[in-house]
Amino acid sequence: MDIIVIGGSVAGLKAACRIRRLQPDARVRVLVRSEYFAHSVCGLPYYLSGDVESFNALLTTPNGTIKDEKYFRDVKDVDVYTGCEVVGIDRAARSVRCYYPDRNEKTFYPYDRLVIATGTNPIMPVIQGTDLPGVYTFTTAGEAIKLRGELEANKIDKVTIIGAGFIGLELCEAFRAMWGVEVDLVDIRNQILPGLVDIELAMIIEDEIRDQGIKLRLGCGCHEVIQKTDKLCMSDRSGNLIESDRIVIAGGVIPNVDLAHQAGLEIGVTGGIKVNDHLQTSDPDIYAAGDCVELSNAVDGRAEVWSLGSLASRMGRVVGDNICNGDSRFGPVVGTTIVKMFDMSIGSAGLTRIDCEERGYEFGECWGTFYDRPHYYPGAGTTKAKIIYDKSNSRLLGFQAVSNGRLVHTLNLAVQAIRTGGTLEDLSDIEHAYAPPFSQQFETLHFLTYIAENSRIAGIKLVSPLEFSDLPDDTLILDVRISTEIEGRPLDVGSRGIITIPVEELRSRLSEVPDKGKVVAVCQTGCRAWDAALMLRRAGFSDVGILAGGALFLPAYS
Amino acid sequence: MDIIVIGGSVAGLKAACRIRRLQPDARVRVLVRSEYFAHSVCGLPYYLSGDVESFNALLTTPNGTIKDEKYFRDVKDVDVYTGCEVVGIDRAARSVRCYYPDRNEKTFYPYDRLVIATGTNPIMPVIQGTDLPGVYTFTTAGEAIKLRGELEANKIDKVTIIGAGFIGLELCEAFRAMWGVEVDLVDIRNQILPGLVDIELAMIIEDEIRDQGIKLRLGCGCHEVIQKTDKLCMSDRSGNLIESDRIVIAGGVIPNVDLAHQAGLEIGVTGGIKVNDHLQTSDPDIYAAGDCVELSNAVDGRAEVWSLGSLASRMGRVVGDNICNGDSRFGPVVGTTIVKMFDMSIGSAGLTRIDCEERGYEFGECWGTFYDRPHYYPGAGTTKAKIIYDKSNSRLLGFQAVSNGRLVHTLNLAVQAIRTGGTLEDLSDIEHAYAPPFSQQFETLHFLTYIAENSRIAGIKLVSPLEFSDLPDDTLILDVRISTEIEGRPLDVGSRGIITIPVEELRSRLSEVPDKGKVVAVCQTGCRAWDAALMLRRAGFSDVGILAGGALFLPAYS
Repeated sequence: MDIIVIGGSVAGLKAACRIRRLQPDARVRVLVRSEYFAHSVCGLPYYLSGDVESFNALLTTPNGTIKDEKYFRDVKDVDVYTGCEVVGIDRAARSVRCYYPDRNEKTFYPYDRLVIATGTNPIMPVIQGTDLPGVYTFTTAGEAIKLRGELEANKIDKVTIIGAGFIGLELCEAFRAMWGVEVDLVDIRNQILPGLVDIELAMIIEDEIRDQGIKLRLGCGCHEVIQKTDKLCMSDRSGNLIESDRIVIAGGVIPNVDLAHQAGLEIGVTGGIKVNDHLQTSDPDIYAAGDCVELSNAVDGRAEVWSLGSLASRMGRVVGDNICNGDSRFGPVVGTTIVKMFDMSIGSAGLTRIDCEERGYEFGECWGTFYDRPHYYPGAGTTKAKIIYDKSNSRLLGFQAVSNGRLVHTLNLAVQAIRTGGTLEDLSDIEHAYAPPFSQQFETLHFLTYIAENSRIAGIKLVSPLEFSDLPDDTLILDVRISTEIEGRPLDVGSRGIITIPVEELRSRLSEVPDKGKVVAVCQTGCRAWDAALMLRRAGFSDVGILAGGALFLPAYS
Repeated sequence: MDIIVIGGSVAGLKAACRIRRLQPDARVRVLVRSEYFAHSVCGLPYYLSGDVESFNALLTTPNGTIKDEKYFRDVKDVDVYTGCEVVGIDRAARSVRCYYPDRNEKTFYPYDRLVIATGTNPIMPVIQGTDLPGVYTFTTAGEAIKLRGELEANKIDKVTIIGAGFIGLELCEAFRAMWGVEVDLVDIRNQILPGLVDIELAMIIEDEIRDQGIKLRLGCGCHEVIQKTDKLCMSDRSGNLIESDRIVIAGGVIPNVDLAHQAGLEIGVTGGIKVNDHLQTSDPDIYAAGDCVELSNAVDGRAEVWSLGSLASRMGRVVGDNICNGDSRFGPVVGTTIVKMFDMSIGSAGLTRIDCEERGYEFGECWGTFYDRPHYYPGAGTTKAKIIYDKSNSRLLGFQAVSNGRLVHTLNLAVQAIRTGGTLEDLSDIEHAYAPPFSQQFETLHFLTYIAENSRIAGIKLVSPLEFSDLPDDTLILDVRISTEIEGRPLDVGSRGIITIPVEELRSRLSEVPDKGKVVAVCQTGCRAWDAALMLRRAGFSDVGILAGGALFLPAYS
């Protein structure tokens, strides 16, 4: 049995090694276009940043063996051919046509089963100048190595990053934290991380980006790139110039399906290769795995593409199983992203508000600010999080959070709940691991569920961080924080009335609160505001809300 | 409606506040025996250690308000009566009889609904001398405060901790890390953390305990405690004396059900108060919550008691709901424990091997050593973990791990899987959050599942870290590590044969491996041993195994 795998990243190599393990007699060849393969692609930003000292560290086993052609041959019994461009798939003859540019040689390899793991291509804006030297996409190891070399040689004082998606954010830290490069982060859209977090979380992260000295320009499209003496200039649509030494276009990626398309394989609506749940394409002898594949969303089955190493690696394994007569299935997927940027962890799983609106869900939202560990424990951080749920059946649809503490243990719980159709009732009953050095007695997901439920029962409205600045003018703001908190994070209430009474004194001072309309109670995180709102409701106030997530959830700049 | 809550820790207070929120007209009174209440009990070891500076930190809200009687009255509208001993429950009259020793006053309070949240009592060995001054149980705030004061006054140079359960372990760090106290850790049983981890994991942790300079004495029972001039002496059954300044008896806890028992409420086989899934006792007007309650195990429904803040807090909320005519259910529970000890995180969920043996399961086990994050990422740690599964249906029964990196995100996934009856197939398909600063591309649970499955398919035996020292003498050990690894962690193979060939060279040097019987391949973590074992199998070796978890899973001392 001849197996050909196109692509030398995680999905392709995992499939190749798995097939070789399961089928001792199979001949497994992996065709790789680049000279680089088998390195951790997700590790490239940390190599650029200097956190990882050498590129080879991304390429070695834990005991220091370089995962090169020899390693795969000697240890995995898999042949890897680098510098090999696959130029076509001949399905009738069951062979792939290849070209080795280095030695100007054409050849072909027959296959019994073929695996397409061609990954993605960068999305490039259709403008002049993206081919200038000094313009990068940071999608290849070669680019990362070159940029790191230029950083080490002090050739980069200023960089412009176009695209504020998660790679763009990782690159901000990579250029800035250790190398001190001046960074302009530019995006034509009006928020960072669109598709991953909603605007109210994006605004908190944008604050932090600015606090780190990064110049963030949202709603700023790139019109063209020009060379100006030894600098590169990006001009926006109004003709403003942003000058820098290098430009990185991090505008996202799309599935690389050229070969699949040319071979007449079915391509899905998303542009990814269409596969069944065995990851088999429309040709039963051809499988596809990794970022080039169209997947199905676990919430509603909608077709989506994801570029996530956690999915690609498992897809490779599933393909390996199935080619060896196994019966492994893949998906549907929630789509789970976690990003580190400076001291922030940003996590997202499932649908955002915009996703829900597009899909026509009748949804509820709930926000909160919580300590990741008990507040008394040294190093405890705060997590600002939201859930989105289907009002018709209270099913969890999405979770988003930003934390300066720990987040991944909560995100993992959210993913399981979303994937299994968990409702708010299910969430309120989640069992979790707790000890003060690690987590809270109640999980962030418990708290969010309780807030949503309490709000419904008590008739107290949750005012979102976004709505807060748009409250009607006759709204009274009741700030129940203590004076040091208020001084540290004063509220901008515009022309609305505000009174401040610490929650501890509120019960005896309730008569000071005029009952003339809507009252919104505010504290630091939302917790004391809740107690205050309950007191008001019981005192007969009819229109009572709290600022969900508290003052800490309000962006400072925006 | 009159609500009485007995107990001022997390379950009782949560129930009280919840009832007050839901029922504006209820009168809620919490009766607390001690002067201390509402502090974080789980935080006491970190207060003792000095990580948490003051006891008040355990007692305050995040904004610094002390949670005293005034706070509960003013903010939560709940009355807390401290120094109040409940001496009896009169179910016919629906009242509780109380005694205030401070003012030598007897009284009674009527109730419409009663909540018993009386927590636990320490298990005391039936020996002489446990009542001597200087002998502690570390189960009350008063003891923690006294011990901390003695540490600050340099009155403790040496301490003996009796009981190597998780509190005992937390106390080792608390006494040693900052205060430098000499510690003897004594347990009559033959391993630390019995009931939470199996012996092969216990032995790894025991190594670390010894490395931290703690004198660990297992199989050592306490015969009596005597005063000897200004020292306390614990004598074991052989008459050996262990001298120290203080003794802490941390032999575990049992539900405190005296009041429930006297009132004729049903007590379960475990000694915990029997409740239905609404946490209602055998008297429908009386509810129970927290550590005094008997719970049902999620795997097989067996009755168990757990002393876990994560469960107690949610139980309080469920009781609150149900007293206010809600329909909230609690349990069954997996029982999830995580403990920090020095740089180790120790986690456990579900059944141990001994649990499985007792219950008659036909079970499989699988071990592995994994990086918690990609090995190239700065600060990545290693996790030594095992799963236990039911061979009849491949259901996950238990998970245990010790890590010098991050563990809680994996433990949370394991708990969900165990609780929902997840099988190995389900585990292999878990979706998780991945980015190099947080986690691995494959989850620890993926790896363990894959190893279990691969072993079955390939006919390669998993030799457990325990079995390794007991292999038949004719077993050949094939060490496929590189020389620096071998030097750093040499194998003790007794009289067995051993040859060393790095895995990268093995394919071409296979002829050097004599095929005369059983061969067990060994590497650092189990991963390369697997590749080696596959090569042997394909070369015709019939009896091939690997050391599961690798050399890193072998205890160094034991």
